[in-house]
Amino acid sequence: MALEMQRGTTVRTGGAPASAAPTTPEIDQLCINTLRLLAVDAVEKANSGHAGAPMGMAPMAYTLWTRFLKHNPSDPHWFDRDRFVLSNGHASLILYSLLHLTGYDLPLEQIKQFRQFGSETPGHPESLDTPGVELTTGPLGAGFATSLGFAIAEKTLAARFNRPGHEIINHYTYGLCSDGDMMEGVASEAASLAGRLGLGKLIFLYDDNSITIEGGTALAFTEDVGKRFEAYGWHVQHIDGEDVAAVQGALDAARAETARPSMIVARTVIGYGSPHKAGTNAIHSNALGAEEVKLTKHALDWPQEPPFYIPEDALGVFRRAVNAGRDAQADWNSRMDRYGAEFPEEAANLRQLISGKLPPGWESSLPSFSSADGAMATRKASGKVLTALMPVLQGLVGGSGDLAPSNDTFVKAYGALGNDGWDGRNIHFGVREHAMGSVLNGLALHGGLIPYGGTFLCFSDYMRPAIRLAALEQAHSIFVFTHDSIGLGEDGPTHQPIEQIASLRAMPGLRVIRPADANETVAAWKVAIESPGPSALVLTRQDVPTFDGATRAQQGVPRGAYIFSDPSGVAPQVILIGTGSELQLAVGARDLLAKEGIAARVVSMPCWELFAEQPREYRDAVFPPGAKARVSVEAGASFGWERYVGDDGAMVAIDHFGASAPGPVVLQKFGFTAENVADHARAVLRQLSPAAN
Amino acid sequence: MALEMQRGTTVRTGGAPASAAPTTPEIDQLCINTLRLLAVDAVEKANSGHAGAPMGMAPMAYTLWTRFLKHNPSDPHWFDRDRFVLSNGHASLILYSLLHLTGYDLPLEQIKQFRQFGSETPGHPESLDTPGVELTTGPLGAGFATSLGFAIAEKTLAARFNRPGHEIINHYTYGLCSDGDMMEGVASEAASLAGRLGLGKLIFLYDDNSITIEGGTALAFTEDVGKRFEAYGWHVQHIDGEDVAAVQGALDAARAETARPSMIVARTVIGYGSPHKAGTNAIHSNALGAEEVKLTKHALDWPQEPPFYIPEDALGVFRRAVNAGRDAQADWNSRMDRYGAEFPEEAANLRQLISGKLPPGWESSLPSFSSADGAMATRKASGKVLTALMPVLQGLVGGSGDLAPSNDTFVKAYGALGNDGWDGRNIHFGVREHAMGSVLNGLALHGGLIPYGGTFLCFSDYMRPAIRLAALEQAHSIFVFTHDSIGLGEDGPTHQPIEQIASLRAMPGLRVIRPADANETVAAWKVAIESPGPSALVLTRQDVPTFDGATRAQQGVPRGAYIFSDPSGVAPQVILIGTGSELQLAVGARDLLAKEGIAARVVSMPCWELFAEQPREYRDAVFPPGAKARVSVEAGASFGWERYVGDDGAMVAIDHFGASAPGPVVLQKFGFTAENVADHARAVLRQLSPAAN
Repeated sequence: MALEMQRGTTVRTGGAPASAAPTTPEIDQLCINTLRLLAVDAVEKANSGHAGAPMGMAPMAYTLWTRFLKHNPSDPHWFDRDRFVLSNGHASLILYSLLHLTGYDLPLEQIKQFRQFGSETPGHPESLDTPGVELTTGPLGAGFATSLGFAIAEKTLAARFNRPGHEIINHYTYGLCSDGDMMEGVASEAASLAGRLGLGKLIFLYDDNSITIEGGTALAFTEDVGKRFEAYGWHVQHIDGEDVAAVQGALDAARAETARPSMIVARTVIGYGSPHKAGTNAIHSNALGAEEVKLTKHALDWPQEPPFYIPEDALGVFRRAVNAGRDAQADWNSRMDRYGAEFPEEAANLRQLISGKLPPGWESSLPSFSSADGAMATRKASGKVLTALMPVLQGLVGGSGDLAPSNDTFVKAYGALGNDGWDGRNIHFGVREHAMGSVLNGLALHGGLIPYGGTFLCFSDYMRPAIRLAALEQAHSIFVFTHDSIGLGEDGPTHQPIEQIASLRAMPGLRVIRPADANETVAAWKVAIESPGPSALVLTRQDVPTFDGATRAQQGVPRGAYIFSDPSGVAPQVILIGTGSELQLAVGARDLLAKEGIAARVVSMPCWELFAEQPREYRDAVFPPGAKARVSVEAGASFGWERYVGDDGAMVAIDHFGASAPGPVVLQKFGFTAENVADHARAVLRQLSPAAN
Repeated sequence: MALEMQRGTTVRTGGAPASAAPTTPEIDQLCINTLRLLAVDAVEKANSGHAGAPMGMAPMAYTLWTRFLKHNPSDPHWFDRDRFVLSNGHASLILYSLLHLTGYDLPLEQIKQFRQFGSETPGHPESLDTPGVELTTGPLGAGFATSLGFAIAEKTLAARFNRPGHEIINHYTYGLCSDGDMMEGVASEAASLAGRLGLGKLIFLYDDNSITIEGGTALAFTEDVGKRFEAYGWHVQHIDGEDVAAVQGALDAARAETARPSMIVARTVIGYGSPHKAGTNAIHSNALGAEEVKLTKHALDWPQEPPFYIPEDALGVFRRAVNAGRDAQADWNSRMDRYGAEFPEEAANLRQLISGKLPPGWESSLPSFSSADGAMATRKASGKVLTALMPVLQGLVGGSGDLAPSNDTFVKAYGALGNDGWDGRNIHFGVREHAMGSVLNGLALHGGLIPYGGTFLCFSDYMRPAIRLAALEQAHSIFVFTHDSIGLGEDGPTHQPIEQIASLRAMPGLRVIRPADANETVAAWKVAIESPGPSALVLTRQDVPTFDGATRAQQGVPRGAYIFSDPSGVAPQVILIGTGSELQLAVGARDLLAKEGIAARVVSMPCWELFAEQPREYRDAVFPPGAKARVSVEAGASFGWERYVGDDGAMVAIDHFGASAPGPVVLQKFGFTAENVADHARAVLRQLSPAAN
């Protein structure tokens, strides 16, 4: 395979990375086929996975990665790198191959271990498993939507920190996506938002291969995707995705278009090179089989042996990324130094944000409350926290899915990002919960920002896949869920969460925090800000009493559950456990019981996950194993509460849908009263000591 | 207010319902303002709700309901009625007013009780609460997507049952929708699918009022909605939505277009008539206030008193629907009789479907299995059940979100609906889980069909809002969720459900059934078919042993949990509870323990909800209160299992995300082995009787 390097055809103009030295069409094909065959061999060895998409996308991936992508394989976390998003995560091998070939710390051995336990090459890309994987993808549409977060982060940080002559923040977000991505609603939400925001540095290549798992896309998908994206306000091009020059030209044009995000609709052939399976769904999610592998290698003029063969010449082209990336980052470092010399305060702030560390003493800005502040909805308290933190935490950005006035998520002293200029801190997400959740994850994964986003707790259902991805990749996203129970009132059953709290608690890797009053809300925000991963703040619409004891809340909330009050001088006979707006009912029941001489402990339990992390000693101090008389009260499903009330306890909960009526009426009708909690306590005590009654 | 009835201007041609007698522009305005002011007064009295949208949409609603909608207020369930969908459910008052005014059994007193406990006028329309409300709406986008189910049901039933000269099934699905609906991804998914299917009798009016809760829609939403819908393949018109003649003309044109669904983009004014709040977000979700109510009534030339005033002339126009509807249904009844005379078998089949009753003896078609059938994934068993039931249950239709080969939901003997003609029974939903769930609900609510739809259990997250609506409105939708645990293997954490089973169990009104083998799968399908509301079938990707004892499964599954095996001659010392693919581990552990002389009961527990419905006697027989040694095993989150294992029990579960590797490896690595279950049983027994060990 003699290759003529001198026939350079592919020089790019306009800020081409240093890796974009000339290649020949022959070596282009060699590199592309390297990508194709690595996928074929890896899927064949695992006897599992998706080779078809990588085979078809290889020319696009090759062109993007060797001629456009600004990255440093030696430092996958370099802040000003371009972000690459493989939205169709099932094509993971194209990414793993690119990472290996361009010199990331991902040995070929890992590709041979594709889809094996403990490998760095899981079936779908997992950001925590593999260096260079920016985000976890696989659930379709998610990567596309998350990419907005990268692009928004870049654009707002650039607006805030760049200065004339100092383009410190200047990178692109490039992505590959598939028919499946385009069909998912979350991608539609995101595309519309991206169009509104004019994300000119967001560029996607759409692998339009006409094949899905069930057969031809036309079975279910005949829309004009390009026209749809034009309607969203995108810059749209149509190309032959197997043609390197066409891909290059389209990417150049996409970069030249700075006011609109770009969608390059690229016609490709799934399983390109496979004589019998190319262009069919037989190659979508199955190994090719030994015979077809043989025929494919023959068709692509590839040696049959060894498997996982990487020609030296191809490797050489890909590996140019190592030096190019090192040089690019070194250049950026020196530019950062010059920037710091000229703009020391801005540079210090930016470095602080990039570090991901919180500025020293930030927590002194947190407000505290007393009973003198009167009753206050925890959503209101949350709004006060945000207002207090915005000046001190410059990374904080966020908004709502068109419920900002209800969620109390709009901080008035700041503008709206993309509406009032790009240095705004508020984001209008529109009625797009799923995209909002995805964008939050992208903002968090980009680095430099701490994103939050609000909707009603009930509509957390719409964004559940995004919450799960945040949990899976430990994105530092903060979900603000207000209107957290039937107590929201008149909007009725469609808006009243029942099972949502339990459903979120069941998810690994997510902290669900339901504060009881203003001070617990402050502490909840502090936990969420300091958490490495995602948190869900679960907040009331309705007013709740503000309890005195800010310190108690500050110390208690981070432990998940704490003794809110104990009877004085006597041992408690019963433990009343409340969360959120129902803590007041536990307190009320305590007082009712006290009149009858029954001594009750009140436990406030804002966060199960934090409590489960406490040492056994602490947990046993809050819930002594011998103290069997326990009653929980929470205006949500009882599901799961046996964990804390035990066999002898009782739960005041709601295991059916709500009703439309004023909040206090609904709560009262469904048993959320201090008297009913006290009744349950009496019943539990009777059951435990029948003789005594 | 003298009205000249003779200046008729609005006669429609082409099958106009009898109610569409001429009116004058003056009486049109009177009727329209009646709708507007009823909304204003009701929101004012409740001091809660949304008057702005009804005020702006009133001309469209009036025109549609008095000149097009075929319905019979005296029989809201008449099968061949047009279906009306209010997708922006927060505008519920427009629907309640129309129902009252056109003569449904919804007294004015109910409108005065808007948003009060126990009224028939909840904040958002609830199909179980109010006669004439076809579906529950409020969560945005849902109504729009669900409407496809109505239109698909009409089209397929028409294709299957109509005969030349006998248009027995012939009705439209009309809807109103809002900016919020258009922003939600589920609407995009549905619109694309509707375009693919060419649902010519699906007609939406889009209330394009430029206002959302946060302010002008342009804050977040600048796309060209009309162009987007053209890209989906819809017929799109743009009109002034406050102009009755324009609305009428557009609806005529939409009906004339039979090959494509129609979207009428109607520019309207939110809060039309309110001098200070029209066209602003101040009127989106707040009462107008006494002064503005006064000014609005003045501006619309309306008497200040009494509130809830309905002019006789307006009522007269609306109430024409009573006679017109009665006549229309009577005509249909006689046409059905003629149809029955000519096509007795078809008519009998159609009447059977309309009745919602299952044909006698249908269950004799259910297969049964024995150990001789060998190991079989429950998804495969499910596919066999579908294949067996399709001929006998003619209402059964369904498909998958592009995972039919994996979900085993495609029944090969039948065509694909919309692809191979409209009498097909399989549906290609595309990669659109949320729309699929919504469409299933629409198919179910339409009547005549029993819909099912498949995806991976993990992606039930994408359609969770639709599942919740099914539970809330008790739609008879059957959700087929395969790949139900980490046992699916190589696809890894993004595809491996952990918390999904618990999250679904936490939802009221849904039966979650996780069968252990082929026979339990048969029984699970029987339960799902016979259930009044929705069920979720949770099925394995991987093979599981087929246990002998089809009768045991048939009898046991409907009770939710049952004694799978008991030690002979001795009382069990420990109860091992398994669900789905883990029942085999409980059985294996039983055998291991038996070798040590430990007698174990095995309980199979496919459905918590059914078990909870059993009498206490039965429940105590399965789990005797004194039998404290219990171990559950389920390859999902432990969340909630304390309910059945109790304080002294143990759970073999997985409370973290999974891993990419072959299924048996993942299961083994994370403790899903008979040996580990036995270990837990030994530990539980030791704990309970420390002296004995």
